[in-house]
Amino acid sequence: MSEPLFQRVALIGIGLIGSSLARVMAREKLAGEIVISTRSEATLKRAEEIGLGDRYYLDAGKAVEGADLVIACVPVGASEAIARQIAPHLKTGAIVTDVGSVKNAVIKAFKPHMPEGVHFVAGHPIAGTEYSGPDAGFASLFESRWCVLTPDEDADEQAVAKLRTFWERCGSNVEIMNSQHHDLVLAVVSHLPHIIAYNIVGTADDLETVTKSEVIKYSASGFRDFTRLAASDPTMWRDVCLNNKEAILEMLSRFSEDLSALQRAIRWGDGDALYSLFTRTRGIRRDLIDAGQESPEPNFGRQNSQGEPAQ
Amino acid sequence: MSEPLFQRVALIGIGLIGSSLARVMAREKLAGEIVISTRSEATLKRAEEIGLGDRYYLDAGKAVEGADLVIACVPVGASEAIARQIAPHLKTGAIVTDVGSVKNAVIKAFKPHMPEGVHFVAGHPIAGTEYSGPDAGFASLFESRWCVLTPDEDADEQAVAKLRTFWERCGSNVEIMNSQHHDLVLAVVSHLPHIIAYNIVGTADDLETVTKSEVIKYSASGFRDFTRLAASDPTMWRDVCLNNKEAILEMLSRFSEDLSALQRAIRWGDGDALYSLFTRTRGIRRDLIDAGQESPEPNFGRQNSQGEPAQ
Repeated sequence: MSEPLFQRVALIGIGLIGSSLARVMAREKLAGEIVISTRSEATLKRAEEIGLGDRYYLDAGKAVEGADLVIACVPVGASEAIARQIAPHLKTGAIVTDVGSVKNAVIKAFKPHMPEGVHFVAGHPIAGTEYSGPDAGFASLFESRWCVLTPDEDADEQAVAKLRTFWERCGSNVEIMNSQHHDLVLAVVSHLPHIIAYNIVGTADDLETVTKSEVIKYSASGFRDFTRLAASDPTMWRDVCLNNKEAILEMLSRFSEDLSALQRAIRWGDGDALYSLFTRTRGIRRDLIDAGQESPEPNFGRQNSQGEPAQ
Repeated sequence: MSEPLFQRVALIGIGLIGSSLARVMAREKLAGEIVISTRSEATLKRAEEIGLGDRYYLDAGKAVEGADLVIACVPVGASEAIARQIAPHLKTGAIVTDVGSVKNAVIKAFKPHMPEGVHFVAGHPIAGTEYSGPDAGFASLFESRWCVLTPDEDADEQAVAKLRTFWERCGSNVEIMNSQHHDLVLAVVSHLPHIIAYNIVGTADDLETVTKSEVIKYSASGFRDFTRLAASDPTMWRDVCLNNKEAILEMLSRFSEDLSALQRAIRWGDGDALYSLFTRTRGIRRDLIDAGQESPEPNFGRQNSQGEPAQ
């Protein structure tokens, strides 16, 4: 029997990401013991029913006692409260990390509270679905997905290396990045798309001239693609918006500027401008498929509503 | 042997929709003879190689001679040119229809040219993929999809009934709608989503601070969902924008208004407003799944890049 990578791992939060980690850690034998904590009694009970860990605590402080690795799997807005709560209980030499979609704000929330001898290394597995909660997780969630680590310049190299190994054994490809740059990249590839999706679904829901049942009935013509992102966890996304404000506002400005130009082209019947944009964007889809980041199947390979393949 | 529904059907245009119609008509034996016309020599040759029809013409006028049903499967901007071209060759009693995503402009383009005794009934099968051309079509494209017919008040009832039967035998559910209302409904469920998708993909492509390869690499975090719609046929979408201008501009105004409010909530840290919108939109996804318009599988049921199931 080979030694597990960590003797004891504490998961603070047991939603989609936390419960997926619990499952892959068990499958890959990455932890001698998995300790689970969440502040919701119902969620903790559910995690125990599914059998995601070895011990269960409502109190995050108790959960991290003696842990070699602590992973905060909570909405980024909860970071500082968690940091305060766990700080007095952390073992010297422990690695503390997180999974949030924003890195600067999380580092600012954690770092000042971390005791001497504890290694904080921020992380972000770029993986997820539109579902949440302990039942939504699955062991293969991180497979072939990127996990970005954003260690500070003074970070302990061994701790960073060990965390990298952890994520690799979860199936991920690990990338090291500066936290500022991470937040800018994510603002464009993830935060802006989610905000736009939330917005358009809201706009459609508010119309008086077109009924909600018509929107649903004819949604396959484009609208439904947006509803997936707009079904993502509201707390997580509220916190992302509040904690990556500058980068998001910058991307929103650019988006709105571009949209005004497009609107103007429509108003003035500038067909060439429209054709030129619509051709350029088609090329990006091809690049994405060529890079293995998307399936070439039509309609995302969706099955149609009768359960038959679309093609 | 039962009689085919139409003795002779002429398809003007043989892209995704036209070639899907040719395939389903052959499978369901809906036409005694399928005549195909397109102005591109290469496309016509390809259609003949695949064996989509019985006769092939570059000249749309020749193609419609003696046809009982003529279906214009062309970008809506080509409608008037096609109407002029085919008008002198149409048989008395023929039904002429189209498949465009805009109905008012198409009716205005066709109606004035239609000879006495020819029945024009505008139509719109709400079905498609992000691919185009004669190779992209497939016989099951219309199955369980809506097809909207927007006949004028003075339309011939028998012609409308026969066209309804045609689409039903192609697998569609048929809905009769006023053309004004159709254009408003489609502006919100289809045209706005496509325009927004084109715009966001363009915005991401234009950044200087984030590289294109980073956008592609991390696209699974949200961005890639938009690239599918933004890969749709540029000519078709240019024409939609130019021909449903008023309804689209109205929807764009509402979208931008809502986005400004959302942007303001982010700037001022109004977490409650964000949480409330994000919760409301999640409910719409559920309604859509309950209505059978979308699969409940996470991530649209996408396979991951390694070809393994995501769950």
